Amino acid sequence: MKVGGVAYRSVWREGDRIGVIDQTRLPHEFHTLRLATLDDVAHAIRTMQVRGAPLIGAVAAYGFALAMREEAGDATLARAAEILLRTRPTAVNLRWAIDRMRARLRSLDPGERVDAAWQEAASIAEEDVAQNLAIGRHGLGLIRALAGKKGRVNVLTHCNAGWLATVDYGTALAPIYLAHDEGVAMHVWVDETRPRNQGLLTAWELGSHGVPHTLIADSAGGHLMQHGAVDLVLVGADRVAANGDVCNKIGTYLKALAAKDNGVPFYAAVPTPTLDWSIGDAHREIPIEERSQDELLFVQGRDGENRTARVHIGTEGIKAANPAFDVTPARLVTGIITDRGIAPATREGLAALYRPRAA
Amino acid sequence: MKVGGVAYRSVWREGDRIGVIDQTRLPHEFHTLRLATLDDVAHAIRTMQVRGAPLIGAVAAYGFALAMREEAGDATLARAAEILLRTRPTAVNLRWAIDRMRARLRSLDPGERVDAAWQEAASIAEEDVAQNLAIGRHGLGLIRALAGKKGRVNVLTHCNAGWLATVDYGTALAPIYLAHDEGVAMHVWVDETRPRNQGLLTAWELGSHGVPHTLIADSAGGHLMQHGAVDLVLVGADRVAANGDVCNKIGTYLKALAAKDNGVPFYAAVPTPTLDWSIGDAHREIPIEERSQDELLFVQGRDGENRTARVHIGTEGIKAANPAFDVTPARLVTGIITDRGIAPATREGLAALYRPRAA
Repeated sequence: MKVGGVAYRSVWREGDRIGVIDQTRLPHEFHTLRLATLDDVAHAIRTMQVRGAPLIGAVAAYGFALAMREEAGDATLARAAEILLRTRPTAVNLRWAIDRMRARLRSLDPGERVDAAWQEAASIAEEDVAQNLAIGRHGLGLIRALAGKKGRVNVLTHCNAGWLATVDYGTALAPIYLAHDEGVAMHVWVDETRPRNQGLLTAWELGSHGVPHTLIADSAGGHLMQHGAVDLVLVGADRVAANGDVCNKIGTYLKALAAKDNGVPFYAAVPTPTLDWSIGDAHREIPIEERSQDELLFVQGRDGENRTARVHIGTEGIKAANPAFDVTPARLVTGIITDRGIAPATREGLAALYRPRAA
Repeated sequence: MKVGGVAYRSVWREGDRIGVIDQTRLPHEFHTLRLATLDDVAHAIRTMQVRGAPLIGAVAAYGFALAMREEAGDATLARAAEILLRTRPTAVNLRWAIDRMRARLRSLDPGERVDAAWQEAASIAEEDVAQNLAIGRHGLGLIRALAGKKGRVNVLTHCNAGWLATVDYGTALAPIYLAHDEGVAMHVWVDETRPRNQGLLTAWELGSHGVPHTLIADSAGGHLMQHGAVDLVLVGADRVAANGDVCNKIGTYLKALAAKDNGVPFYAAVPTPTLDWSIGDAHREIPIEERSQDELLFVQGRDGENRTARVHIGTEGIKAANPAFDVTPARLVTGIITDRGIAPATREGLAALYRPRAA
């Protein structure tokens, strides 16, 4: 996608390093980083300089390439996997990318691993872009149908599931970009998404692309749905269980409850690597990351002189809890938009998309 | 309640002026204000230096006393009512207090109105304190019952319905204070309550009184309820309709949905003046205040040098919507705790509390 007229992806190779956008400085500053080592990559994921389940997967894959450059033996492979896996526990894309990179590289001689790692990481990135475009096309059908009935389509989204959260295009935002580009009148309600305020990333993305949008507090969506102001809730996910349970940014569950209560369709948009066929009970089996209370207690913005500044909103000794994700039960989910098509949020529905098709 | 060992109410008479706590400077600074004119009062209510439905009612009542000091004719009465009524549209206590003050003063000669206004405002304030204590005692029964089953009782609350929101004790927090004081092990999950962060007022109140509590993002409550970490949701209200619909701070509806979905009891605690018998359809008839987008876009806290500072979280040109309240349908409400007792959230249940009792 474009930033100030220049095409960007959210991760790219630059010689022996990888380039990423420092998302902790957005939306106030657009600043790119060069990551040269495995430790750089782990740090970038942990501190959320890069974030979003699909992007984390792709960046972790490139992390293997950087690790192989240092030393390409089996011990390094194992160490890279271990270090990367520890960075963020909830998204399944990270584990998926690590498993894929290890499987690919383990089968090769150490001497072949550096080139193969760069190639495999690039494949993962390219596949993500293609999958997101496919998600966009499938979701576009839903939006067109709503536009036929309603004229302007009001979508509510939570967190950031745009191109910044993926390699390009985004998951939940891909259908919105495609619809906007073909002239459908769109408006997006953007949840602020405390405590990390990823809604500001979404607002920045949508603004850069010219899509009308309005920022709202995370508490406002239910009220808007009660008053007919939302036609569709569209979110990404960090992991979708085989039964259609959706694990996504904390607060998604509350929006799904409100959507159900008001007859508003609720969809999660995910590329294939976000589906976790191994999970039967999302509540018991998906680890929910508990992040630092400082994410809630410190808020970043611009001060009166337009410099980046942080303020502490609490008083001394205040304690906060910060679970980063929640699980929306499949019964609240209208459907899962994948790169293979749209499925009902059921084991059978999802499996049908992945069944080999007759020639 | 006590602040640093000194007993305070949230509004008091001081000679010819009234004293209030500037709640826009809490929790970072405890600062009191003296209001000398009707305009001072209207400004304090509008800018939320004083806030909370019951406190707004009491302060508005004192506003009549200040207005009568300037000029005690019928025109002043009408003007005071008009100015005060415009400050905040959603809470019914404001209208209730204005109607009561007008009715009382209209019947008197202008020469008697100054003293009568001070007396009537003081009565309103005293009645609020007594009603909140009664709410506390009724709610205490609920908490004791939970404590019998669970040991420690985990309450989730939204916004601030503590003593700062009333003249003293609070509505939703009154039962919590009484339970804590009699030795029940309590813990309160405090919703941050964006955009104005009244959760920080609640945390400050609870901390001052020694009640264990944890601040959470507004998005976290559903996840906590899914995991059995909440025994009771207890909120205040700005207006309760005759059918039991609860109008309260934006986001209350989402917590009520999650409570219902997880079998957690959800109660609103309100003094009699918060009941609006005239409202049949809360969604159509209660005006929902839309406040400035700057409340969402600017966040106040302490900077690195411990000075109060504000940061702008968005980028230039960003637009935000800021509806301040929502309506929780009665079907999601387990009960209404009033000063007369606890009623089911139905027309019949509420009416029964207010039926004249046999001698």
